[in-house]
Amino acid sequence: MSGTIRGVGLGPGAPDLMSVRADRLIRSSRHIAFFRKAGRTGHARTIVQGMLRDDAVEHAMEYPVTTEIAVADPRYNACLAAFYAQWTEKLADLAATGEDVVVLCEGDPFFYGSFMHLYTRLSGRVGVEVVPGITGMSGAWTASGAPITWGDDVLTIAMATLPEEELTRRIRDTDALVVMKIGRHLAKLRRALAAAGRADQAWLVEHAAMAGERVTRLCDAPATAPYFSIALIHGQGRRP
Amino acid sequence: MSGTIRGVGLGPGAPDLMSVRADRLIRSSRHIAFFRKAGRTGHARTIVQGMLRDDAVEHAMEYPVTTEIAVADPRYNACLAAFYAQWTEKLADLAATGEDVVVLCEGDPFFYGSFMHLYTRLSGRVGVEVVPGITGMSGAWTASGAPITWGDDVLTIAMATLPEEELTRRIRDTDALVVMKIGRHLAKLRRALAAAGRADQAWLVEHAAMAGERVTRLCDAPATAPYFSIALIHGQGRRP
Repeated sequence: MSGTIRGVGLGPGAPDLMSVRADRLIRSSRHIAFFRKAGRTGHARTIVQGMLRDDAVEHAMEYPVTTEIAVADPRYNACLAAFYAQWTEKLADLAATGEDVVVLCEGDPFFYGSFMHLYTRLSGRVGVEVVPGITGMSGAWTASGAPITWGDDVLTIAMATLPEEELTRRIRDTDALVVMKIGRHLAKLRRALAAAGRADQAWLVEHAAMAGERVTRLCDAPATAPYFSIALIHGQGRRP
Repeated sequence: MSGTIRGVGLGPGAPDLMSVRADRLIRSSRHIAFFRKAGRTGHARTIVQGMLRDDAVEHAMEYPVTTEIAVADPRYNACLAAFYAQWTEKLADLAATGEDVVVLCEGDPFFYGSFMHLYTRLSGRVGVEVVPGITGMSGAWTASGAPITWGDDVLTIAMATLPEEELTRRIRDTDALVVMKIGRHLAKLRRALAAAGRADQAWLVEHAAMAGERVTRLCDAPATAPYFSIALIHGQGRRP
């Protein structure tokens, strides 16, 4: 009888914003795996603090690289591919001994997550399931205190890692906007918003649904943004 | 001491996919309000079946119109505006007597929901809060068994109610796609997908995270789609 690997969405950060299903799985699982930057506690692990079984076995999957090598460098992909392959073997071996494993996933596992890199490698070898979660962007627009989309609004979700011209074009050509992966691309995002004529419509939400949540007009925000930052432009569509 | 009105996201449909916070609020609230089509039980109410307090007071907010009047007809907006104004008064009156109210919201309240029409009217008059939920689209891409976005993929979310040319343009100009509000616009959506050259990449997810969940290639789907249908094109972005 082989076990099942479950990628479990934790939602945007507040522990009570994970689903009832996620809460039950995390509290009852003997094996808990999670990604983290080497040397850190890990944000996913922090969210579940106090929830794990006393005899839980923790598997910290430490990224071999985060920002030390440029994403465009072939070594970046090679390094991560080896990392995912190695953890695929470890988790598949565990499942083969009949153990279930919960893999903690910030936000929603199938939405720009890391678990999908294990999911695609594990599929067909062992049982793999996904429990969806509230996305970080839902946490951000809820924190902003205004609906993101109305009526027939088009919502575009773009990464700040895109080239500046492409980002500008996307910002110009949408009703509502979500920009993620901002980090060191904040200055570029500001220029793209200005070029699209929408700088005064954009909000920056930092640490949505976590301690230190802050919502500011992007034009009033400091020059650097923390990792957990999401930019928003709210749609203005039809409303009765 | 006045009460608080809370728009509470129920998630995509399975009761254990609502957040722990939503679950607690719904089980403990004396006043439960929800939207529904006149004469129906209502999908939101169905999701919470068996969860309410024995002495819960239920407030069924029945839409005065759904598809009987065209959305473009000014009477449609006038009719709905009067409906939201009336329920704003009722809920504000309840809150003024010190009662808290939970308003059940399918999916995520600030993402193409109905609660936002009460939220904007109640804001500044009484305490109003929103509890985010897992979106129906997260339920759909989870059901599809494949990640919706990778790396720097651009995700476009568009309503099938858009004009055909606009829909075609949006489908052509994105990596990943979510189309909602399909219903009687399915034939138009098929034409738009074909015109954009992407008909063979699209999936239709019906009743995600509910009884009767079904995932089919959109080109193999029947000619009509139920209300709870979401079309997807998965992104194919960078992956290690």
